[in-house]
Amino acid sequence: MAASVQSLADRFGCELRGDGSRSITHVAPLGSAGPAAISFLANPKFHGQLADTRAGAVILAAGYADQCPTACLISKNPYATYARIAADLHPPASATAGIHPSAVVADSAHIDASAEVAPLAVVEAGASVGARVIVGPGAVVGADSSIGADTRISANVSIGARVVIGHRCVLHSGVVIGADGFGFANDETGWTKVPQLGAVIIGNDVEIGANSTVDRGTIDDTVIEDGVKLDNLVQIAHNVRIGAHTVMAAMSGAAGSTVIGKRCMIGGGTVMINHISLCDDVLVLFRSVVTKSILKPGTYSGSLPADEASTWRRNAARFRQLDKLADRLRKVERELDSKSLK
Amino acid sequence: MAASVQSLADRFGCELRGDGSRSITHVAPLGSAGPAAISFLANPKFHGQLADTRAGAVILAAGYADQCPTACLISKNPYATYARIAADLHPPASATAGIHPSAVVADSAHIDASAEVAPLAVVEAGASVGARVIVGPGAVVGADSSIGADTRISANVSIGARVVIGHRCVLHSGVVIGADGFGFANDETGWTKVPQLGAVIIGNDVEIGANSTVDRGTIDDTVIEDGVKLDNLVQIAHNVRIGAHTVMAAMSGAAGSTVIGKRCMIGGGTVMINHISLCDDVLVLFRSVVTKSILKPGTYSGSLPADEASTWRRNAARFRQLDKLADRLRKVERELDSKSLK
Amino acid sequence: MAASVQSLADRFGCELRGDGSRSITHVAPLGSAGPAAISFLANPKFHGQLADTRAGAVILAAGYADQCPTACLISKNPYATYARIAADLHPPASATAGIHPSAVVADSAHIDASAEVAPLAVVEAGASVGARVIVGPGAVVGADSSIGADTRISANVSIGARVVIGHRCVLHSGVVIGADGFGFANDETGWTKVPQLGAVIIGNDVEIGANSTVDRGTIDDTVIEDGVKLDNLVQIAHNVRIGAHTVMAAMSGAAGSTVIGKRCMIGGGTVMINHISLCDDVLVLFRSVVTKSILKPGTYSGSLPADEASTWRRNAARFRQLDKLADRLRKVERELDSKSLK
Repeated sequence: MAASVQSLADRFGCELRGDGSRSITHVAPLGSAGPAAISFLANPKFHGQLADTRAGAVILAAGYADQCPTACLISKNPYATYARIAADLHPPASATAGIHPSAVVADSAHIDASAEVAPLAVVEAGASVGARVIVGPGAVVGADSSIGADTRISANVSIGARVVIGHRCVLHSGVVIGADGFGFANDETGWTKVPQLGAVIIGNDVEIGANSTVDRGTIDDTVIEDGVKLDNLVQIAHNVRIGAHTVMAAMSGAAGSTVIGKRCMIGGGTVMINHISLCDDVLVLFRSVVTKSILKPGTYSGSLPADEASTWRRNAARFRQLDKLADRLRKVERELDSKSLK
Repeated sequence: MAASVQSLADRFGCELRGDGSRSITHVAPLGSAGPAAISFLANPKFHGQLADTRAGAVILAAGYADQCPTACLISKNPYATYARIAADLHPPASATAGIHPSAVVADSAHIDASAEVAPLAVVEAGASVGARVIVGPGAVVGADSSIGADTRISANVSIGARVVIGHRCVLHSGVVIGADGFGFANDETGWTKVPQLGAVIIGNDVEIGANSTVDRGTIDDTVIEDGVKLDNLVQIAHNVRIGAHTVMAAMSGAAGSTVIGKRCMIGGGTVMINHISLCDDVLVLFRSVVTKSILKPGTYSGSLPADEASTWRRNAARFRQLDKLADRLRKVERELDSKSLK
Repeated sequence: MAASVQSLADRFGCELRGDGSRSITHVAPLGSAGPAAISFLANPKFHGQLADTRAGAVILAAGYADQCPTACLISKNPYATYARIAADLHPPASATAGIHPSAVVADSAHIDASAEVAPLAVVEAGASVGARVIVGPGAVVGADSSIGADTRISANVSIGARVVIGHRCVLHSGVVIGADGFGFANDETGWTKVPQLGAVIIGNDVEIGANSTVDRGTIDDTVIEDGVKLDNLVQIAHNVRIGAHTVMAAMSGAAGSTVIGKRCMIGGGTVMINHISLCDDVLVLFRSVVTKSILKPGTYSGSLPADEASTWRRNAARFRQLDKLADRLRKVERELDSKSLK
């Protein structure tokens, strides 16, 4: 898909500086872009590459326009503008309407005529697949589930029974939605499974990364609100609720019944223990352990950076003595105090 | 499935208080249950909801019976009783005997006549699938593997060759059993793969959560004993042995040759390094790193809770000086001592 | 496959001591090997088992030869020699040439005549599958991808579009290569997806463990060089580059644009944050958080070992006071200093 610089500026609400007639066919980084590419400058760190760029056009903030050797599209948020223009120039493949003959679709399933069901996919009884949905190869859509319009389900995704997924979602390969939550009652015979009877409800515009897992609720549902983005290998336990537009980076997890607010950002590898809640607008930095509810928006942290091993070992050994060190310090203070009094 | 309150009390060994004639069709939480639902009170935290419940019956401990406005089933372990009654009212779908025509089953595989092989599943040569087993859509049962009676294998599970799985197990979607362990020998050419020749042996009543992985042993086998429950995204490396009725929460992992005792509880995100052992009845709290064998039953802990970022940063900076701080404290103590002597 | 001890010594470059005529059919551990088995002694810890072994032959270092009660193959690197002999005696199943009739292969895909495409696998348009490759059951090879000769793709692997994989690679079940990287631009409407347009390029002799994920690059590619070994549940984000012969243990992850050098060893559960680089020959011990670039080869560490819970709790509480403790220590030192001056 090609577009003139002028038309991109018009359609994406940017002020144009320079020659708008050039035809743009693709995006490229500042350093390697040629004249048919549009690039962007969002991170000031790459500012040095601007002067030498051979891009056909650059999306940037007003302050950099004078230094741009080629046409530029001025945006208050160059990265978001870039994202929209890149999606326009490189749209994802749209659904090829129809059910591949090798797919297995239950008679009672409803597949919109514009949806694509890829080779060797399975759609179980009572499931509903909306307009322009893509059900990827080898994916399984469980009984009585519902997939909203324009949602894309990649290869080998597994969706359990009675899962509801909204519009324009993206589920990457290996994602599992609606497996049983981890619930067992203990008695003298060991562990008795607690039936996991709830569903999973996923809003619109949700993206879930490869091999992430979202369990169904125990009695009530697990809920993921609109616009949530989960990275790869993320774990969402039963009865968790994730507020709209929250993002969770790779390898993070929310234990059972955690409630996460809107617009939170959860760093990679972070664990939130069960039955806590995070208010809206909380940023938790990577690899934290959140053990109690967070009631105040702000930034929270919880990991110790790696160090050269011998240094780390000495400090880690002292950590094991920390309580005793504190007691000794207290004793020293008292002794000094008593001397002062004399 | 409906049952009278009386019949539930009888069949699950509870003392009944109140009207036993009401018909119960499902379970529901105390707060939202209607007259056809049975609920439970296990966590004293929810005690306040009891007085107002509209449930048809409530499972609870004797001490709460007097406060219950409806029929109640008195149990010493209300949660376990609830689990059993919920499973009775909401049984999982049983196997629909037969092999779907789209499934690919090797001639030399043995499929019990009562087992279900779902659409697009694969059962390889020499494999054996027991009575009432469900092999879910897209699941693969490897060559010469054996699946015990009443085991349920969800969509897109991958079971490698020569894996043995017991009776009544549940494997959730995306589980991988019997991939190669991570074994390589290093020399001047880089890493040479050490063939992973062992099997995986899984006992009865084992449940394994979505996208968890259990590797085969190097020469000997990886073993998971009866009643073990693994949550999602759990990693079990080659030659690990997990004792009966041990549970491991999501995102925890056991490195090669770890031996875990019976009835242990391993918190989410915990890592156990290789070649260590944990005795029976060890509780390891979430996100710990277990670096040496645990020889005494008890509770172990190993994570630091996240804090407001600026506070965390100050403390983390001090952690890097901890050994020096301890040295300075020692010096202060000596100086004080010498002054005392004067 | 059987071989005489003499022929193994000859073919694998070992000095033979003792009877070379015995026929060896398999490998076994020192403690349980019988006369048709070859065993090895690599870890001095198992030295005590040597005297009583009933193995037909033992691979060991010269220093142990005199204590070996049976034939021995002397090697400078017994473990690497064992790995090669084990692979010779127990070769992985080779490809059974041909496309299973249940597999779905696009007309425009190229499948080498010697390759195996297993039941219910999918090879999309324009993909190329090399000589003796095995595409496992339920695996999906995306459009325009390329799989080099002798690569083995296990059950239910998902490979996205335009992924390039080298020769002799092993991808275990559930692996996802080429899902979108986690890139979103934030503005007042929430998160806008940044199209992930790069590819994934994987070299030769790379092994990737079960359920690991390697995302495609944003504009440029994600690159994994020759000989890299990734364990299970490893996350490789967009635009990461991993140098040749680096290994990453289970549950470790590299965030976006991380550059890892050659011959690094990354311990299990380690997280590397985005946009940092590690030089060659870095060893990072398990469960570390690497937050800044490592410019010097060596060993780095970053986790605190679990402790008995009450001890841990006391020390963890003091951690939260650490900055204040340090301030108090400074005050004590000053006070002592001032007293000394008097």
